[in-house]
Amino acid sequence: MGGDFAPHATLQGAREALEAWPGLRLFLVGNEGVIRPELPKYGFTPALMSRVELVHAFHTVMMEDKATCILKEKKDSSIRVAAQLVREGRAHGVVSMGHTGAAMVASSLVIGKLDGVDRPALASVLPNMKGTPTVLLDVGANVDCRAVHIAQFAVMGSVYAEEVLGLERPRVGILSVGEEDGKGTDVTKDASAMLREMEINFEGNAEGRDIWNGSFDVIACDGFVGNIVLKSSEALAEGIIAGLRESFMQSALTKFAGLLAKPAMKSFKKKLDYSEYGGAPLLGVKGVSIIGHGRSDAKAVRNAIRAALRAAEHSLHQRIQERVALLLPQD
Amino acid sequence: MGGDFAPHATLQGAREALEAWPGLRLFLVGNEGVIRPELPKYGFTPALMSRVELVHAFHTVMMEDKATCILKEKKDSSIRVAAQLVREGRAHGVVSMGHTGAAMVASSLVIGKLDGVDRPALASVLPNMKGTPTVLLDVGANVDCRAVHIAQFAVMGSVYAEEVLGLERPRVGILSVGEEDGKGTDVTKDASAMLREMEINFEGNAEGRDIWNGSFDVIACDGFVGNIVLKSSEALAEGIIAGLRESFMQSALTKFAGLLAKPAMKSFKKKLDYSEYGGAPLLGVKGVSIIGHGRSDAKAVRNAIRAALRAAEHSLHQRIQERVALLLPQD
Repeated sequence: MGGDFAPHATLQGAREALEAWPGLRLFLVGNEGVIRPELPKYGFTPALMSRVELVHAFHTVMMEDKATCILKEKKDSSIRVAAQLVREGRAHGVVSMGHTGAAMVASSLVIGKLDGVDRPALASVLPNMKGTPTVLLDVGANVDCRAVHIAQFAVMGSVYAEEVLGLERPRVGILSVGEEDGKGTDVTKDASAMLREMEINFEGNAEGRDIWNGSFDVIACDGFVGNIVLKSSEALAEGIIAGLRESFMQSALTKFAGLLAKPAMKSFKKKLDYSEYGGAPLLGVKGVSIIGHGRSDAKAVRNAIRAALRAAEHSLHQRIQERVALLLPQD
Repeated sequence: MGGDFAPHATLQGAREALEAWPGLRLFLVGNEGVIRPELPKYGFTPALMSRVELVHAFHTVMMEDKATCILKEKKDSSIRVAAQLVREGRAHGVVSMGHTGAAMVASSLVIGKLDGVDRPALASVLPNMKGTPTVLLDVGANVDCRAVHIAQFAVMGSVYAEEVLGLERPRVGILSVGEEDGKGTDVTKDASAMLREMEINFEGNAEGRDIWNGSFDVIACDGFVGNIVLKSSEALAEGIIAGLRESFMQSALTKFAGLLAKPAMKSFKKKLDYSEYGGAPLLGVKGVSIIGHGRSDAKAVRNAIRAALRAAEHSLHQRIQERVALLLPQD
């Protein structure tokens, strides 16, 4: 029910996912009175419906709601009911395009945190300039992180890159202000020391530019920095594209050029397109949780479901559990 | 002597600045044996030379040097000799395109910090999507900042925006993860509380996207976040431009479109061009210090000199001193 284009984009994306992956079974969680009449329009044939179960949830979390509303006022919201299915072992994972905070609360408190994980982390899978994905985490506003939290983020991100993105020995870094080990805050330096002991491919400090140049596969940071970098990057990229479009409107000649340039611009935008990776996994909970962008279209929904499917097939949270357990307990 | 295109870009920019602003007088600080023979090539006529004084400095700080080399091994480096001229009151300010760290050390230790300023801050003047400048500070890697440092950055940035950029009642924010006052780290929340007591136009939390959308004129943050955001943004913008260029190379049609699109691309790049603002002021020292990008061309050098000239004309550091004194002493 959540997201700017729900339930249309959600239903369209869900149907495409069912067609694409025959092993997939879906619960559609939301207001049954709204969803059921829509199903035929989106091509949910009886054959597809044999792999679908509708689960009614009365409430929808709105963007203006507080994340914690699902604990009190909106216990019967679609995100909470969906998380409950995971908790009960009826579903392997939950995919949501709605209120990010509510999805994080539902995942952390209803599905529950993994043992040894202090704070689940939201991981953003970004397209870098080499055309490969870079995993940046946490981008979910975990503020005031301690070193052990950042070390956990790094380990979880590494497992995700390996298991779900299929990268071999992902190169892991900690976001800091200089390449040298001595550079950074006390927190990043302590986190580095912990990671050097781990059996992951830890390559030390990553700088701001490394988020985009493909030198690292996984970059860990506290949720304050991660959230600011992500929001700033989104705004900058949108601003550059909008500014270019405006430049093309200056004269008849540039308008003509703009028209001819459309295919190039389009193929380029595809490269930058977050919907290719489909959503941000929330790592560190006892199941799969993928949180998509509110603006997700059908394709983004479909790809978010694919990400959830892959994570479930690789028993992602069990792999994370095993690896996080190797981090020495801190306090 | 510093910067990727020294001494050529420096001399060319210096000559253009002398022509543009008749009130300007310049010391050219560097290896006299290198500089003097070059002067005629760059149009330093006898008339212009009446406003120029050559000051010899034997050493040049190289990019691979440590910032602190100017305190020991390279006491006779151009950046230190230039800072010494400011310390002695012979020059109002120093402009450098060289080693950022060395310029910061020279400014902080040789020119000296203002009373009441714990840490000088490097301010980046960024072009936002409304076509106005946004001042982001600190971007100079002041890590592990306390609230009072961030409050000082905000006050110094506000004075700079008002005095040098000519903005009336600049809108000042603190970089954080949400608009609401309750959001952020303990440090940002304490800094906000301090700024609410000040006579600046403090508008609370700024988010990552606000760096680019023009909602704020001045955004203060610790140097860890600021440095990461700045380097990440530079890499993203460069990557987008490079990616677009590549897209235009795909076929004969898109190549033709690219050719026609050149003027539009050029006018757009001008908008994003950091060299328009000429360099980053280091705020909080007893004089003017402008630190340019290593890649500065003549135009960037010229504009950095303009920024220094304006700061000197407005007695920037005295204005900062007066305003910072109003922040209650902490500790």
